[in-house]
Amino acid sequence: MTSLSPYDTMTPVARAAYRAQAAAADIAPLPRAVKDDVLLAVADALEVRTAEIVEANAKDVARAREAGTGESVIDRLTLTPERMRAIAADVRDVVALPDPVGEVVRGSTLPNGIDLRQVRVPLGVVGIIYEARPNVTVDAAALCLKSGNAVLLRGSSSARDSNAALVRVVRDAVGGAGLPADAVQLVPGEGREPVRELMRARGMVDVLIPRGGASLIRTVVEGSTVPVIETGTGNCHVYVDARTDLSMAVDILVNSKASRPSVCNSAETLLVHQDVADAFLPLALDALADAGVTVHGDERVLAHAEKSRATVVPATAEDWETEYLSYDIAAAVVDSLDSAVSHIRLWSSGHTEAIVTTSQAAARRFTQLVDSTTVAVNASTRFTDGGQFGFGAEIGISTQKLHARGPMGLPELTSTKYIVTGDGHTR
Amino acid sequence: MTSLSPYDTMTPVARAAYRAQAAAADIAPLPRAVKDDVLLAVADALEVRTAEIVEANAKDVARAREAGTGESVIDRLTLTPERMRAIAADVRDVVALPDPVGEVVRGSTLPNGIDLRQVRVPLGVVGIIYEARPNVTVDAAALCLKSGNAVLLRGSSSARDSNAALVRVVRDAVGGAGLPADAVQLVPGEGREPVRELMRARGMVDVLIPRGGASLIRTVVEGSTVPVIETGTGNCHVYVDARTDLSMAVDILVNSKASRPSVCNSAETLLVHQDVADAFLPLALDALADAGVTVHGDERVLAHAEKSRATVVPATAEDWETEYLSYDIAAAVVDSLDSAVSHIRLWSSGHTEAIVTTSQAAARRFTQLVDSTTVAVNASTRFTDGGQFGFGAEIGISTQKLHARGPMGLPELTSTKYIVTGDGHTR
Repeated sequence: MTSLSPYDTMTPVARAAYRAQAAAADIAPLPRAVKDDVLLAVADALEVRTAEIVEANAKDVARAREAGTGESVIDRLTLTPERMRAIAADVRDVVALPDPVGEVVRGSTLPNGIDLRQVRVPLGVVGIIYEARPNVTVDAAALCLKSGNAVLLRGSSSARDSNAALVRVVRDAVGGAGLPADAVQLVPGEGREPVRELMRARGMVDVLIPRGGASLIRTVVEGSTVPVIETGTGNCHVYVDARTDLSMAVDILVNSKASRPSVCNSAETLLVHQDVADAFLPLALDALADAGVTVHGDERVLAHAEKSRATVVPATAEDWETEYLSYDIAAAVVDSLDSAVSHIRLWSSGHTEAIVTTSQAAARRFTQLVDSTTVAVNASTRFTDGGQFGFGAEIGISTQKLHARGPMGLPELTSTKYIVTGDGHTR
Repeated sequence: MTSLSPYDTMTPVARAAYRAQAAAADIAPLPRAVKDDVLLAVADALEVRTAEIVEANAKDVARAREAGTGESVIDRLTLTPERMRAIAADVRDVVALPDPVGEVVRGSTLPNGIDLRQVRVPLGVVGIIYEARPNVTVDAAALCLKSGNAVLLRGSSSARDSNAALVRVVRDAVGGAGLPADAVQLVPGEGREPVRELMRARGMVDVLIPRGGASLIRTVVEGSTVPVIETGTGNCHVYVDARTDLSMAVDILVNSKASRPSVCNSAETLLVHQDVADAFLPLALDALADAGVTVHGDERVLAHAEKSRATVVPATAEDWETEYLSYDIAAAVVDSLDSAVSHIRLWSSGHTEAIVTTSQAAARRFTQLVDSTTVAVNASTRFTDGGQFGFGAEIGISTQKLHARGPMGLPELTSTKYIVTGDGHTR
């Protein structure tokens, strides 16, 4: 009889985290060229083995259809050879991004002659809990590998066959390149217990990033001892200032609301300065009507309803805090820019707020006072996006203030360490 | 009968957080000059009202003596006119530090012509839970004010009269300068319940920073939904490499261990490469003996005990993970640099590890592989300190990887926001 090692007595989730830690230690010091070569191998493998992945995906899609899942969700779940080419192209885009690891963030020689450098290092083990879309599996793996991290992936059960196939292909490519395949793992096990265990794996997992609906994110935030980066809820506002370009304001409003209502950077509330309400609202309500948007208006907005083509229903307090993610928008007339700011401070999820104004003073005050990840001046809320910001693929949009805020790219997947170099220095 | 506002129905802790949020919104946009003037007024008031503060402190000290508290704790609790001058001087040092708020961290013009800027902004409401030393009260308030944050302070009950007096003086000075006094508040209420409430005040408190013993920190980390920055536990290592300057290694070892054993950046474990053990250990054991240090050695260290003046007791597994904070050190001989790294990865709290070596290759490998907030090459572990690093006073030393790692100065008390400026841009 031999005695059990700690590994033997661990749960499957703890073992996965343990192996991820070991893999993370191996890949952390790798130079960029090695990591880029692996990512190119991953991209190639995703294309070469497309048939295998699409076949696995077909099982998920069939299960979803049987369960009566809506077509828009099924569409997001579905992988085709064309989509696989796009996913592989995304991985190659990550190859083109600079490697954040090793960057000297600060550096100086201290008065006593010590050289102090603060350098970027990988976080270590990143846990990602996400819903539906299987392309997230590959995006997350590619971003974590590039930034020298190991990743533990927990997708939704509705995509389990797709995710298993994708991760198998990625791991084969990583292992084939001589790197530890355990740098990319699915969290093992069914149901909620493995997720709960992951959430309590402080010391083994360095950060958890939940991506998905509000209830998933709330569960992870409230139950984790592992540090969490909260992502995604977007109750975004468009504020039309007293001094504004009416046609620009209509364009930005419609684009912010209706270009893709299901995403977190779409607008959910319109606020209009009272001085411009009579001029703006008739144009805005008709434009929203033409875009198929239902307006949930306060009394002063409702007063304009009859003269427009729009469907305007009375707003309740609930409307101000709702992230519709649909062709609906709440709308109110406010007395001043400061009233708009107060409304936003009270109700916004702190994602993105836009002002449309011709006044430099108003733009300055709005950007100073609004406390959200992104403040847009004369631009659509839809620009809050890692790709739009030039960060490449994004691992999520942080709506908290700690560590990362707004779209998260590669640098947000790193920490730092200080290197203190002396020649026998003591205190 | 009038209806109750939400404020009226809040608990005292929630009210404090609510008022802190309002104060935070007021002070966030203040320019540096206004904040510096307030801090100078605070420093002056601390000196002018020293008698009042020392008198309150005397009550805490008397209570501590009655409770049979040890002299070293009583010493740290005690405020004297001289210490008050030092505390006021610390506040003036914060005045001299650059204001992190408004710094443009990144900026570029996107291909579509949008101007993108990422600027530093205050975190908002910072909660600090700390033990014993009342000077932390003033340090924390000064650093938070300078960085545009409101602060909720929760000191230990043993310093409650001192903290109440200090905060009264600070608030009077802040209010006297026309700023909201609620930017600096003590968390109201007695016992643990107010702390528990603070820990669950996500959305009202932006970050919690626990400073103190391991059990306090664990409680906050495990029970909080508010994002936490873990601080301070330091199981720091000194590794003496095969190629080394023996006399430098002895100096660094003794300084790291014995210059101030009670602090988190003091060394707790010595690791010696086997090739240098016979030459180094006799010198090291005698030097540690002369500094009054007891050595908890592995077998190969014990083998050198007889020939030295040192007290060497056998080490158990527990010694490798112990933060003694006393004149004790664990010591082991390791087969290689990589063995030292493995030992450190297994047992270290990730605070600070030092290598003493003449080999450039060893220094490079050690700094690459060791995953701690600070890696020191030929320098004492004691340099991991905000003051030593030139950051001014520090709000703590983060031992986690998220948001901040190592000594935290003013920039670590900020977040960022993106400003997107277009001229009607839509997607």
